[in-house]
Amino acid sequence: LTSRLPAVGTTVFTHMSTLAARHGAVNLGQGFPDFACDPALVEMVSAAMRAGHNQYSPMAGVPALRQAIAAKVAAQYGHAYDADAEITITAGATQALTTAILCCVHPGDEVIIIEPAYDSYTPTVELAGGVPVLVQMTFSEAGYAVPWDAIRAAVTAKTRLIVINTPHNPTGTVLRQADIDALAAIVRGTDILILADEVYEHMVYDGQRHESLCRHPELAARAFVVSSFGKTYHVTGWKIGYVAAPAPLMVEFRKVHQYNVFATNTPVQHGLAAYMAHPAPYVELPAFYQAKRDLFRAGLAGSRFELLPADGTYFQCVRYRAISDLPEASFAEWLTSEIKVAAIPVSAFYRGGQEAGVVRFCFAKREDTLALALDRLARI
Amino acid sequence: LTSRLPAVGTTVFTHMSTLAARHGAVNLGQGFPDFACDPALVEMVSAAMRAGHNQYSPMAGVPALRQAIAAKVAAQYGHAYDADAEITITAGATQALTTAILCCVHPGDEVIIIEPAYDSYTPTVELAGGVPVLVQMTFSEAGYAVPWDAIRAAVTAKTRLIVINTPHNPTGTVLRQADIDALAAIVRGTDILILADEVYEHMVYDGQRHESLCRHPELAARAFVVSSFGKTYHVTGWKIGYVAAPAPLMVEFRKVHQYNVFATNTPVQHGLAAYMAHPAPYVELPAFYQAKRDLFRAGLAGSRFELLPADGTYFQCVRYRAISDLPEASFAEWLTSEIKVAAIPVSAFYRGGQEAGVVRFCFAKREDTLALALDRLARI
Ligand SMILES: CSCCC(=O)C(=O)O
Ligand SMILES: CSCCC(=O)C(=O)O
Repeated sequence: LTSRLPAVGTTVFTHMSTLAARHGAVNLGQGFPDFACDPALVEMVSAAMRAGHNQYSPMAGVPALRQAIAAKVAAQYGHAYDADAEITITAGATQALTTAILCCVHPGDEVIIIEPAYDSYTPTVELAGGVPVLVQMTFSEAGYAVPWDAIRAAVTAKTRLIVINTPHNPTGTVLRQADIDALAAIVRGTDILILADEVYEHMVYDGQRHESLCRHPELAARAFVVSSFGKTYHVTGWKIGYVAAPAPLMVEFRKVHQYNVFATNTPVQHGLAAYMAHPAPYVELPAFYQAKRDLFRAGLAGSRFELLPADGTYFQCVRYRAISDLPEASFAEWLTSEIKVAAIPVSAFYRGGQEAGVVRFCFAKREDTLALALDRLARI
Repeated sequence: LTSRLPAVGTTVFTHMSTLAARHGAVNLGQGFPDFACDPALVEMVSAAMRAGHNQYSPMAGVPALRQAIAAKVAAQYGHAYDADAEITITAGATQALTTAILCCVHPGDEVIIIEPAYDSYTPTVELAGGVPVLVQMTFSEAGYAVPWDAIRAAVTAKTRLIVINTPHNPTGTVLRQADIDALAAIVRGTDILILADEVYEHMVYDGQRHESLCRHPELAARAFVVSSFGKTYHVTGWKIGYVAAPAPLMVEFRKVHQYNVFATNTPVQHGLAAYMAHPAPYVELPAFYQAKRDLFRAGLAGSRFELLPADGTYFQCVRYRAISDLPEASFAEWLTSEIKVAAIPVSAFYRGGQEAGVVRFCFAKREDTLALALDRLARI
């Protein structure tokens, strides 16, 4: 069997979570909360199962859930998607991203990916036969920024898709109006599509605003916008996400979706639809996570780690050059095995493994977990 | 946006289920039970959620579920798969099939598909850049049979994969030892892989035996064997399946899997693992469904439908030439709108839309549902 993805190993998240378990480390690597979701949400899914919602959902998803999503997007971002024709429920955001890439990238098409990038984007483009065109964010004391000039320079007649991610994993960078304007100027007059990964949409801090592409009609008209329930409702293991896109794009998305997974878990969809009538989680999430971010930053303030900005997501990136000259992967392994705190090397988000002496911590943890980790990290 | 699947519309299952709902027809089209699953299973999934199993599972699946599957396969088919390296949990069997095809079919590779075929196989091969080589089952009064000579003749130096499906949807054909021998003779000495769709493994009637490829080491050594919980536990909407394959194949499968869905629903996996300690459903399922099949066949015996053999699956195919000269798709629509019983045209399982005057009914229904449908069908 000749590999179709010869460059690919096991994801860094699996690797670091396995290592964390082996060493009994506090796992601030893979991004997931260590606290419980709302018991009311669990009860709604259980009720859906007991009510007999256990057979195939419609291919595009349970209508009540699609309607609830359309209503939420309209209320928050002012874009009225048609719940029937423009929203599809997916088996997590990853499946939405992969399906979008498979449906629109033809062999030889170029796809612009901004690194550091979530580790599925590049191999998935290759699986589709596309050519990843990798553009690196700039990096300075002020943090990571998207180099729109470099992206404009990377556009060719073969550019089919630009993948963006805001709030950005792993850097926490949040796109602003000026970024949106730059992106719009680049694609205007072309037939380039946009794939927007917005799974951290409800984790934006310091009063900043999430610039969902859904807010920007010119961009939404050519975008697959992907989000998920895992991060927002503290249930990363439920694996239900969704994609919103204009009907002509959605027709093509669904052709691939129906043969990739056909449909997704029915009772979870019903439970989520019922729970979405409670808008509290959306409203409370920024303050909830901002408190954790602030606690984590305060705990590292006196340490030898250099804190980078953290405007969004539940991740905090730090430079560690004052501590060690190790490459990032080795430093993350050392942190895990010796300090007993697992982290993710940001180099794993670059095809070329670029090094900046930066690792990523996930602060979606209980206060006692964060305190234990901080105690260990501050002692270095 | 240029389509990557220009020939593809909405699946026939979605089309016929929508039509059935619009006309208030008894839906014997899309295959799913209209009765409840075991409440104990629902309770086990609820308990897993309440116990906090709501974050990412390991990429390959919850270990307890993989171990339970390995134990079941060993007990039933005598093949000892390594639960760590050779079993992966998927978002339903469809995602397993798609991921297997994407991981091993390179652009230009040929894939032999036996028609009538489940409607995802052919477009998925095309999505991977492969070339579907379609071989039709023979059709006679005695039913459908796999033409091994034609398959042997279709093999070329470019043949990468043969897709088989037993028990077979839509025809109910069950492969026997002679079929296995023929397949083994064809692939012996080649590096052709096999993708075996065995989701109806526990629905084989009249004392016949399911020839899982797991029973046949020579074939299992080169096979992805796919099954699912949806059919066996009456929960088609839960969308959890699995694939078993030798470790070198599984390494490549997981490379695609981790970027397609990453992992699948955690609490459902835990619930299924607990429930698998109860082997009763496997043991009782053949008699349970054979009684439904016999009831359905008896009800049509005096009708103008000609019953084809139904050795496995929860489907019964019938010829209707004594009733109508309509093409199959039109006849199925007529049945739905006028007779108020939905069926699936078997022509939808052929790329070329081959017609034999045959439609498929699903008999996974309560007795009163079957009685109502039979009453309407027998009156024609
Ligand atoms: C799909 S596992 C990885 C979770 C995640 O998004 C991250 O840690 O970056
Ligand atoms: C995935 S919906 C189709 C269900 C099914 O397998 C069938 O009806 O053949």
